[in-house]
Amino acid sequence: MTLFLKTVSVEEAVRIARSLARLPPVEEVGLADAGGRVLAADVHADMDIPGFSRSTVDGYAVKAADTIGTSESLPALLRNAGRVGIGEAVTMVVKPGTCIYVPTGGGIPEGADAVAMIEYSEQIGEEVLVRRTVAPGENVMARGEDFSRGELVIPAGRFLSPREIGVLASVGRAVITVFRRPVIGIISTGNELVPVSEVPGSGQVRDINSFLVGDFLRSRGCIPVYFGIVRDERELLKSKLDEALTRCDAVLLSGGSSKDERDLTADLIGERGEVLVHGISIAPGKPTIIGRKEGKPVIGLPGHPASAYVVMLVIVRSLLDAMTGRETERIPSVTTVLAENVPSAKGREDYVRVRLTGDRGYPEFGKSGLMNTLIRSAGLVRIPAGKEGLEEGEVVEVLLW
Amino acid sequence: MTLFLKTVSVEEAVRIARSLARLPPVEEVGLADAGGRVLAADVHADMDIPGFSRSTVDGYAVKAADTIGTSESLPALLRNAGRVGIGEAVTMVVKPGTCIYVPTGGGIPEGADAVAMIEYSEQIGEEVLVRRTVAPGENVMARGEDFSRGELVIPAGRFLSPREIGVLASVGRAVITVFRRPVIGIISTGNELVPVSEVPGSGQVRDINSFLVGDFLRSRGCIPVYFGIVRDERELLKSKLDEALTRCDAVLLSGGSSKDERDLTADLIGERGEVLVHGISIAPGKPTIIGRKEGKPVIGLPGHPASAYVVMLVIVRSLLDAMTGRETERIPSVTTVLAENVPSAKGREDYVRVRLTGDRGYPEFGKSGLMNTLIRSAGLVRIPAGKEGLEEGEVVEVLLW
Repeated sequence: MTLFLKTVSVEEAVRIARSLARLPPVEEVGLADAGGRVLAADVHADMDIPGFSRSTVDGYAVKAADTIGTSESLPALLRNAGRVGIGEAVTMVVKPGTCIYVPTGGGIPEGADAVAMIEYSEQIGEEVLVRRTVAPGENVMARGEDFSRGELVIPAGRFLSPREIGVLASVGRAVITVFRRPVIGIISTGNELVPVSEVPGSGQVRDINSFLVGDFLRSRGCIPVYFGIVRDERELLKSKLDEALTRCDAVLLSGGSSKDERDLTADLIGERGEVLVHGISIAPGKPTIIGRKEGKPVIGLPGHPASAYVVMLVIVRSLLDAMTGRETERIPSVTTVLAENVPSAKGREDYVRVRLTGDRGYPEFGKSGLMNTLIRSAGLVRIPAGKEGLEEGEVVEVLLW
Repeated sequence: MTLFLKTVSVEEAVRIARSLARLPPVEEVGLADAGGRVLAADVHADMDIPGFSRSTVDGYAVKAADTIGTSESLPALLRNAGRVGIGEAVTMVVKPGTCIYVPTGGGIPEGADAVAMIEYSEQIGEEVLVRRTVAPGENVMARGEDFSRGELVIPAGRFLSPREIGVLASVGRAVITVFRRPVIGIISTGNELVPVSEVPGSGQVRDINSFLVGDFLRSRGCIPVYFGIVRDERELLKSKLDEALTRCDAVLLSGGSSKDERDLTADLIGERGEVLVHGISIAPGKPTIIGRKEGKPVIGLPGHPASAYVVMLVIVRSLLDAMTGRETERIPSVTTVLAENVPSAKGREDYVRVRLTGDRGYPEFGKSGLMNTLIRSAGLVRIPAGKEGLEEGEVVEVLLW
């Protein structure tokens, strides 16, 4: 067991955290319940979509060749040979010199290769005047134009937004194979902590981290289990950690604001486990611990809530994506122009909260423990380890919360 | 009852749709269940947060004046008068020439106004050498620095992300007043529709809209209720619409790809109700209907799923925000450089799907009915009604899906 490892880079910490994840088992859910879940198996088109060539407008199915050279003053005169009904198989055929009425979504009859919009046509008895030239394929969605039979439509690992749900419907998936949500335990440690419902006395603060971390887990597709507050006493913490490891797929401990407490956390992880990272070159968030016990990831987060949240977003997020089976996505970001210089120590990756006002980004130099900066800022600007700060006027990327 | 109203602008359609919303009733949920909900009452700080001045580092609480002029070679020599425990009320006092050890998060003793970091201090018996000058307030988070007692912390209408949940914990809210999720009925109309689980025959397509629209509702904090597919027959649709209006707070009908079907939908809304909008100057999505029946919003969406989705995002989203009690937020966007010209008709707001590759945006000129463009594109570029298209090289804003 090694307690005092060398501080590792953010990149290395992310790599190590990810490596601890095991892919969750899968389960089947109805399509109406699949939104917000992660697809667990590639989905291919079961047939050509659409299954037949359809009109995208109300109009007359024609042979495009019959409309060449037609205009407002020189319309083509075609014989109306019938009408396609919506939802019906089409048995009629468009022969040269004829046309067939097709509503939007109706099937294109054999022989036709385009649709003349009703707005530019005029029916007179059995005849139809077409006043514009239509090109082959015009106003037609061809069979298989959306997806071809057998085509990969959505790969495993994709987070299912409403748009993927719509696509799954189009290829006939009424039941979807998704990954189970991993169950993650949360333990808050610290003798200064009191439950949220209590009024803290002097020297005490409320347990913010359980809920901040727990709701982040929920928002990333995990099921948080709250183990509450544990005093910084070896036997108490050991028994709670063991209980959490029995019931959960991973455990996040937060707290340990002082060095003694952090050492206790690392010590307990190291007992029949491994401490893989003890200290990351990141600010805020340096005293983060990454370990494994009973084959499960155990993370020790900083005690300051705002620091813990930066570590959740920048490092733990990758572990959670791997545990939920979700493909890695970039954190959404916007660019802005820095309104002030931001100093930074070289050799450490700094994450500075930034408020966005108009097209300018104002760094929040608040202490990392302040909660108000979490809701007053739009996100984080990263200062790479190799840079000694950023300058006013620089264009920077803001990683959105 | 007016069936053929003048086409209205997108702005006007949004305004009318919003005006139909009634604020939902409220309910109370535990803090662990409040994430993803909408706050229904302003939350103020119940006390100064933090409730006492705290150290942000491990170090020695000092009078800053005692460290003026100190340096590595000329340290200040202070008498160590004790040690503050984490979570304990502090009764000790720092007098001139003395210091008291404080761990991170510990209370600052009376008399002290700064903390000298342990890294720049050295304890020798009863004495502590402080090797750097500290400024008043340095390494101290002052009482009330995060929130002052009575301060508005989060306003009603705010969507609760993990960061708001953390802030609510900090101000002692274990139970949160949120808006109830509105219940919204979905009816798919069209004789060409078959259930997702079926293989469509010639002329038929699967019912995509129920699930595309339903999952969008879920993602915006509503509870979708699926009324399935209804054939385009007056009595069938009338009875289903009445049932949905009895059970739900609003109804979204989709389909009616042909003019006859759209007229049927409008006709049924207008019966003991009002059709307020029948046609919007938007592409795709022109044949959208906005109405009210039995005092509830009823929207007729276009039949093409991708068109329906654009209308959901651009217009119905505002109605849903109002119905969920959520404050209006801008659709998240990124800027990009258009890789191709995009033509557009003047007098109509066009929404063009755009794929993002590197720093360029490629317009998807696919037919609006194609589902694949919904998942291959990043979002929509808006072409205002007054513009006749956008040019290659223009910097445009992409409204992210």
